[in-house]
Amino acid sequence: MQGLMMNDPLLVTGILKHALRNHADQEIVTRLVEGSIHRYTYAEFGRRVAKLAHALTRMGVKPGDRVGVMGWNTHRQLELYYAVAGLGAVCHTINPKLGPQNAGFVMGHGGDRFVFFDMTFAPLVLGIAPYLPMVEGVVAMTTAEEAAKLPGEVPDYETLIAGEDDVFDWPSFDENTACALCYTSGTTGQPKGVLYSHRALVLHTFASLLPTSIGAAADDVILPVVPMFHVNAWGIPYSALLVGMKLVLPGPGMDGASLHELIAKERVTYAVGVPTVWLNLLAYVNENGLDFGALKYTLVGGAALSRKIIEGYEAYGVRTRQGWGMTEMSPIGTTNYEEEGFHDLPTEERMKRQLRQGKALPFVDMRVVDEAGSPLPWDGETDGNLHVRGPWVVERYYREDETATTEDGWFDTGDVAVIHPDGRMQITDRAKDVIKSGGEWISTIEIEDVALRHPSVCQAAAIGMPHPKWQERPLLIVQAAPGAEMDTAAVKAFVNEKLPRISRVDDVQVVDEIPLGATGKVLKTELRKRFEGYVLPE
Amino acid sequence: MQGLMMNDPLLVTGILKHALRNHADQEIVTRLVEGSIHRYTYAEFGRRVAKLAHALTRMGVKPGDRVGVMGWNTHRQLELYYAVAGLGAVCHTINPKLGPQNAGFVMGHGGDRFVFFDMTFAPLVLGIAPYLPMVEGVVAMTTAEEAAKLPGEVPDYETLIAGEDDVFDWPSFDENTACALCYTSGTTGQPKGVLYSHRALVLHTFASLLPTSIGAAADDVILPVVPMFHVNAWGIPYSALLVGMKLVLPGPGMDGASLHELIAKERVTYAVGVPTVWLNLLAYVNENGLDFGALKYTLVGGAALSRKIIEGYEAYGVRTRQGWGMTEMSPIGTTNYEEEGFHDLPTEERMKRQLRQGKALPFVDMRVVDEAGSPLPWDGETDGNLHVRGPWVVERYYREDETATTEDGWFDTGDVAVIHPDGRMQITDRAKDVIKSGGEWISTIEIEDVALRHPSVCQAAAIGMPHPKWQERPLLIVQAAPGAEMDTAAVKAFVNEKLPRISRVDDVQVVDEIPLGATGKVLKTELRKRFEGYVLPE
Ligand SMILES: Nc1ncnc2c1ncn2[C@@H]1O[C@H](COP(=O)(O)OP(=O)(O)OP(=O)(O)O)[C@@H](O)[C@H]1O
Ligand SMILES: Nc1ncnc2c1ncn2[C@@H]1O[C@H](COP(=O)(O)OP(=O)(O)OP(=O)(O)O)[C@@H](O)[C@H]1O
Ligand SMILES: [Mg+2]
Ligand SMILES: [Mg+2]
Repeated sequence: MQGLMMNDPLLVTGILKHALRNHADQEIVTRLVEGSIHRYTYAEFGRRVAKLAHALTRMGVKPGDRVGVMGWNTHRQLELYYAVAGLGAVCHTINPKLGPQNAGFVMGHGGDRFVFFDMTFAPLVLGIAPYLPMVEGVVAMTTAEEAAKLPGEVPDYETLIAGEDDVFDWPSFDENTACALCYTSGTTGQPKGVLYSHRALVLHTFASLLPTSIGAAADDVILPVVPMFHVNAWGIPYSALLVGMKLVLPGPGMDGASLHELIAKERVTYAVGVPTVWLNLLAYVNENGLDFGALKYTLVGGAALSRKIIEGYEAYGVRTRQGWGMTEMSPIGTTNYEEEGFHDLPTEERMKRQLRQGKALPFVDMRVVDEAGSPLPWDGETDGNLHVRGPWVVERYYREDETATTEDGWFDTGDVAVIHPDGRMQITDRAKDVIKSGGEWISTIEIEDVALRHPSVCQAAAIGMPHPKWQERPLLIVQAAPGAEMDTAAVKAFVNEKLPRISRVDDVQVVDEIPLGATGKVLKTELRKRFEGYVLPE
Repeated sequence: MQGLMMNDPLLVTGILKHALRNHADQEIVTRLVEGSIHRYTYAEFGRRVAKLAHALTRMGVKPGDRVGVMGWNTHRQLELYYAVAGLGAVCHTINPKLGPQNAGFVMGHGGDRFVFFDMTFAPLVLGIAPYLPMVEGVVAMTTAEEAAKLPGEVPDYETLIAGEDDVFDWPSFDENTACALCYTSGTTGQPKGVLYSHRALVLHTFASLLPTSIGAAADDVILPVVPMFHVNAWGIPYSALLVGMKLVLPGPGMDGASLHELIAKERVTYAVGVPTVWLNLLAYVNENGLDFGALKYTLVGGAALSRKIIEGYEAYGVRTRQGWGMTEMSPIGTTNYEEEGFHDLPTEERMKRQLRQGKALPFVDMRVVDEAGSPLPWDGETDGNLHVRGPWVVERYYREDETATTEDGWFDTGDVAVIHPDGRMQITDRAKDVIKSGGEWISTIEIEDVALRHPSVCQAAAIGMPHPKWQERPLLIVQAAPGAEMDTAAVKAFVNEKLPRISRVDDVQVVDEIPLGATGKVLKTELRKRFEGYVLPE
């Protein structure tokens, strides 16, 4: 028997409407590409989204069309998120850090009819676009004055929307309509496209706003340092607006000084980003004897949280909560929220727990399975391949005919994990990174966490190296903290003293810079190339 | 273009699964019909839900079947909520206070195959059931020992589930499947059935957990005084479990002493109920020189919040937040959450605002329209008929062929309201209760709010009486606080001094008891009958 309730669709436009009618006076603050600060209210934002929707319509953007955006976290990209989706078209966020070749690949693969870009990326976009026949036009996300500095006649965003009506009558349509397209980070191979539906993103927004998920409140001032060019900045552009948070967008200012300034001046209380960003910012604040102002929380994800971050921020009264997710999961799959009494645990026990990836959001199911695909127990010990499913998990990659799921409908994350009896999941590694030593699996995440605790180390990566007896053994590669002396023997002694016997590293090597990928994650593929032929000491 | 995400359905079972895997050790505490306190963990609850699902299957309950429940807020009713819905059947909660005739009507109209009941209602259910041919069986929600006290051989709940397996493999099905049936309160006429879908209730759960909705957190201890026999106790049985709150169920103990004891002993922090309950409890606490322990918040709805409640609870450090909703809305439509700075407003201004019904939940749309159906401005002044729409709003009443909506797809609430420019809605009255005086509409809610502020008044109701010149004028009917002397002239002077000229009451009359309906709301229909023929003084 069917229920007899209205069947209104879950559209991203619903978030926009709610934000405008209920939080019209709230602020959105942006550091512009030009460096200055731009600020306006939700109400003004809403009027510009309407203008943009009219402009896009005039340009001929139709439902289903892909509109590419290559930009920093700014108010203009936010306007594109809502205007493009609101029309029933698809906002394709392009990661500029993929490099020209991959960026060209995703634009072509995405089939973008138009590409909007920030001035920083003008050379990249203007260089690639001519080779992509489906790209009918590009728009510089800036003023006429700034755009005039570009070679040729490049239309600018402000002129584009200037003459348009600031009210738009948003259409209603099926909630399974695509609204956004994003490619994975390319950490392990070629980026794959994930085509989000309105339904998936709205449900993800609701679930991520639960107190047991990100747990930010309506009066938080939120700073998504995670880029809007990657998995919708973890949904903050939707979740912040739904409950009316003050939204602070860092633009191109991802360095310690710019972030610190923004956090201090805008009284940011909640910030979201990948570990490398938090390590950089921490170093900047430490070196300059500053503090974090009103900041209460950081949500850390995209790569494993480290004890160095937890303790480093705690020293300033800032708490860290880990989240785990994937482009394929819209992206949040788990969050490691603190239960009652958590902060009263003895330090070592608490650290152990705080480094877990956390509990699944509602309606997300998880399992760990062995090589044969049989589910393993949730005992906190047995690790296996992590599978997920749920309303905001990918079913099929963009332009693929085959499903991305197992025969029984699960998505294999490519991560290796254990699940603790209380439901907390802990990633031990990526399946591709795990070190296989004498039949046992060694977690590179654990090694890196310990290495980062050494004061001279500012980045660390462990990779498996061939070993005559054990098949593979860990090599630890480190990058020295600015100004620090690096004594690799001392680092080796330091980490091996703290690691279980099996995980002890066979060698430590120093590099000038650990290579980071398009979303700030360590590129182990690069490191493996660099250390090809290297032989572990006896 | 369709998105490429998994299409897993939103089922109430998803809430259950999430609660069990993530919050297994959390507690559910119940005051039993026998008076003692029962407590168990979510884990134990889950095992019993599974046993019950097996028992129901054995009894022959099939998808789509209606299973009636007439009971207090207890763990057994909670188990029925989840087990029945999990099977794809429909949990029909029956309001025992409807009286035998209406209760019989709703059981028959609902077409319940089985009826579960609490011992309190044994006479009612055992008296009616034999006249209802579709009711194949009844079950007393108690132990064998207690059920043995009933006439005849009545099966009991504990024996029913005792031998069953405590694991159940929940089926998956279309999220638009019906999962619960509830009839309106019958305040204005015959109760109407609303058939909720899984989708509607899951979405309502997500939306009501936003910090801008009920705003209870995972570590709150929540007490739904609102009955589970009416609109799913405002969704608390779902929302509390989704984030793992400790749930305290008051059973039949709705009097001041029982509620106070439970709040104190279980350290309740968040309580939810209708105004009459809060007035009673406040009087009890005042009279006995007690306090509210750990209670921080009450959510008040179902009828208008009054200043007497706000100030009465504030004196004990407890905040009140108003919610507005309807059986037809699953039920929450608006909540009046406090924005930053709210508590620093001057008292009179704050009271004015705190008495508003609040802002619509996301995805709920509201409008006020004039008699011709044209939308009116959100100016905080122009009142009209309140229309709503959204994914948890009724489309059609149960067993009706016709839609319950307007031609353009809105549901007319039967309430008269204004909407303020900031999106806050304020009910001025029910369309049926509003007093029409010389072409103007007088809000009975405003009169009652002022009347309740008089120390001798514990209940108040204003109704329109025929008037030769003005068509109608207000008559105020009051019930004296226990032990209070009632000076109607003084009350009249007191209220008229505070009311706008047009709303001043023409007379004050005292009754021993203001009649309350099945969900604790003033029955103005009754009062109108009682005062038929009464003539207002010149
Ligand atoms: N909190 C976390 N701890 C450990 N790893 C994490 C965490 N959050 C995310 N990850 C890693 O990031 C992955 C998802 O990242 P993303 O979707 O951005 O692309 P990618 O997997 O890095 O790139 P590609 O799939 O193209 O190789 C996860 O599968 C996991 O390996
Ligand atoms: N916060 C509130 N302030 C004022 N009125 C409220 C509030 N909350 C609910 N109500 C009233 O309760 C009504 C919904 O109540 P419910 O669905 O329980 O049945 P009912 O309307 O009382 O009964 P029936 O529809 O059978 O006459 C609303 O239409 C409104 O009149
Ligand atoms: Mg990946
Ligand atoms: Mg009604």
